[in-house]
Amino acid sequence: MANPSRDEIWRVLDKRLLVDRSPYARIYERDIQMPNGQVINNFVEVDLPPYVIIFAVLEDGTVPWVRQYRIGLSRYTLELPAGTINGSEDPLEAAKRELREETGCEGGVWQFLGKYIMDPNRQCGWGYVYLVNGVRQTVAPDANDLGEMDAELLTLDAIRQLLTSGSLLTASTVMAAALALVALGSTMSHEMDRKQTNR
Amino acid sequence: MANPSRDEIWRVLDKRLLVDRSPYARIYERDIQMPNGQVINNFVEVDLPPYVIIFAVLEDGTVPWVRQYRIGLSRYTLELPAGTINGSEDPLEAAKRELREETGCEGGVWQFLGKYIMDPNRQCGWGYVYLVNGVRQTVAPDANDLGEMDAELLTLDAIRQLLTSGSLLTASTVMAAALALVALGSTMSHEMDRKQTNR
Repeated sequence: MANPSRDEIWRVLDKRLLVDRSPYARIYERDIQMPNGQVINNFVEVDLPPYVIIFAVLEDGTVPWVRQYRIGLSRYTLELPAGTINGSEDPLEAAKRELREETGCEGGVWQFLGKYIMDPNRQCGWGYVYLVNGVRQTVAPDANDLGEMDAELLTLDAIRQLLTSGSLLTASTVMAAALALVALGSTMSHEMDRKQTNR
Repeated sequence: MANPSRDEIWRVLDKRLLVDRSPYARIYERDIQMPNGQVINNFVEVDLPPYVIIFAVLEDGTVPWVRQYRIGLSRYTLELPAGTINGSEDPLEAAKRELREETGCEGGVWQFLGKYIMDPNRQCGWGYVYLVNGVRQTVAPDANDLGEMDAELLTLDAIRQLLTSGSLLTASTVMAAALALVALGSTMSHEMDRKQTNR
């Protein structure tokens, strides 16, 4: 199924714009024909802007998080630094900008951990995940344009406990933090393998 | 900021239904007043149904994944078993049903790894993540109602490599798989700690 024939591709028969709140959101509906000929009418598509989310490890091993009010949750929540990619901005540059604005941190060695669609049926935007090692807090965080924001530094152990406690609420943060821990674990295993090989 | 005063709460001044494709999607817009008095008009809210996603470990240590066409990506993709919670269905029962329908697996020890909002500003639905250890394939998978679906069994090492390769495309799958690996790693560390303490 990895390389489907043309007949296995779903056809978009029609696409209609329902709501235009550019650049924040555009809602479409589509009529789609499946490979077996069945047609699904009025299938909703939600176009939201792409965003970056950053797991940044400071030289002392702690990671900056931000606490802010989220209208979709009607409460304050603890999240990784994140933000929308502006227009034609390069995703890595957006990640560096958001990290600097929200935490005052810069520098470090950056690694792209992939981009992921928030809903594989209806889209809801792409999230670009970054891991950066060895950042330094060089400037004061900017005031946020949508309300106050507090920064907190957490150790990797505290993050592991938060993730497994189920008390975090935001999919993008849980995805990026868990993925970063897996990537850091793999890196550490590889380094241990390399050290053992070098003996 | 964890317990904001009343003045720090954002007020919803008005909420209007823009698109009703119940039970699949409802699009609203809201006028919101921030604590500083600033009003944001026409803030889009996307109500999508809640879903379950399941990281199921078979007795041989492998995990069933499914490959299917996703219209939001216009391609086939590899994902964990997942599906919508039907009406007033209990999330755990929905998770057991989806796992059985998509992979034919049942039984095991179930653990809830939390529920997460896909977009903390615009909502886009809640995902309920489950980890289950020791499932058995007891029945044949059902035919899927939205096209063909293939199942694949992957080892934990293969999943770790897939996650860090960036080749997976679906946020819910990456979130649930990475979170499950973190939870399994913590369990293994605790068991090792316990064994060492018992010595």
